Amino acid sequence: MEELLKHERIDYIGQKDLKIIQAGDVFSFSLDSVLLAKFVYVPIQKGKLIDLCTGNGVIPLLLSRRTKGKIIALDMQEKLCDMAERSVRLNGLHDRIKILCNDLTQLESSFLDGSYDVVTCNPPYFKRTNERDVKKSLHTAMARHEMYCTLEDCVRTMSRLLKQGGKGAFVHRPNRLVELLELMKKYRLEPKRLQFVHPKNGSDANIVLIEGTKDGKADLKVLPPLTVYDHNNVYTAEIKEILYGG
Amino acid sequence: MEELLKHERIDYIGQKDLKIIQAGDVFSFSLDSVLLAKFVYVPIQKGKLIDLCTGNGVIPLLLSRRTKGKIIALDMQEKLCDMAERSVRLNGLHDRIKILCNDLTQLESSFLDGSYDVVTCNPPYFKRTNERDVKKSLHTAMARHEMYCTLEDCVRTMSRLLKQGGKGAFVHRPNRLVELLELMKKYRLEPKRLQFVHPKNGSDANIVLIEGTKDGKADLKVLPPLTVYDHNNVYTAEIKEILYGG
Repeated sequence: MEELLKHERIDYIGQKDLKIIQAGDVFSFSLDSVLLAKFVYVPIQKGKLIDLCTGNGVIPLLLSRRTKGKIIALDMQEKLCDMAERSVRLNGLHDRIKILCNDLTQLESSFLDGSYDVVTCNPPYFKRTNERDVKKSLHTAMARHEMYCTLEDCVRTMSRLLKQGGKGAFVHRPNRLVELLELMKKYRLEPKRLQFVHPKNGSDANIVLIEGTKDGKADLKVLPPLTVYDHNNVYTAEIKEILYGG
Repeated sequence: MEELLKHERIDYIGQKDLKIIQAGDVFSFSLDSVLLAKFVYVPIQKGKLIDLCTGNGVIPLLLSRRTKGKIIALDMQEKLCDMAERSVRLNGLHDRIKILCNDLTQLESSFLDGSYDVVTCNPPYFKRTNERDVKKSLHTAMARHEMYCTLEDCVRTMSRLLKQGGKGAFVHRPNRLVELLELMKKYRLEPKRLQFVHPKNGSDANIVLIEGTKDGKADLKVLPPLTVYDHNNVYTAEIKEILYGG
């Protein structure tokens, strides 16, 4: 049993056999990350995968159930990397998932060698505008706001990591979709699959999932939308399946 | 009663009181145009509106039921302009809708004066690739393929027609959405409202509706999707409402 620090707890994610260490005073994983881990293409038998801005490592943990490939979980926050490391050990996945505690804007060019099959990223959603958010909790602020890496940093790094034909996937807010698409085109990640998530039937989308192919041919598909809650504010069957199923 | 030429017929559109002249050997209006005419913002009491690539004029006819403004219907095909002209008279709308038979790439700069409140466009969807399509029917080919105007021509012209804060809206295929968004940004039409249309539940989108604001602030909303057919291949209630309702 891995040791838990003060304020930490063990939660279950996805399949009942996956556990994750979380803490109230730092950033906990969100539905967004779970959706991205289910949305992205993965090679089943082998391959190199890396998750940028991994936080407490929820995406790599979920990806480990879909691929036998090697996965790197990258984050620059030591506290989160430490939690992710212990979660990986808790699940006996230390031979499959490596934690890399590094700033993605400071990666060595020898590391950015275009060798990855899959790169995922749930980036900070908000432009840095408000010092109040930062003062409240630095850990949360870093995960939510573009304090140390911008969306462009994430897209550029993703592109340099991917091999030709490799898949890069983001989850983001729809209000930044146009910017995200422009950056993907700029860094040779051709947008291929787009899916919107609506909190309820009849509501505007509040999450967008997008996957691009490095140097791919232009041909975008827009998948059937996902709806999170039914009219009784209960998770829909499709979301239950993603969160708890298979 | 307007005279009908050989192969022509009168169909009803939208509200039961609107009639339109169509013909089997030229391009008939599609669901796409009806959706665009319902999707776009329009000023109710007054304003200047123009529909590019209007074909037989279905969008201006539908818009005339939503606004008291002046509407121009522009197409370069004389045969279609003539049909649109007679449809406008058939509905007694000749004081509200003017037909302009002109090539949108050849409009005089005095006309492109940034004075329009609303510009709509259902452009040719396909890049010109196949001469066979052209030989089959020149009228249909011109409406479907980018023979005389490209998507960039349409976006550039739309932008030059619009006043600051004016609304420009397109209907297109999702596989060209990324290109369309890039062109809108290039020509200062900030994408604001995006809606996808899926033929059925669980199917990829096959139509996209988008509205931008000239020199608007970046802030995209993704509206609830529309679904065209139910599981019995019958129009859904929301599509019936758009086609036949109110």
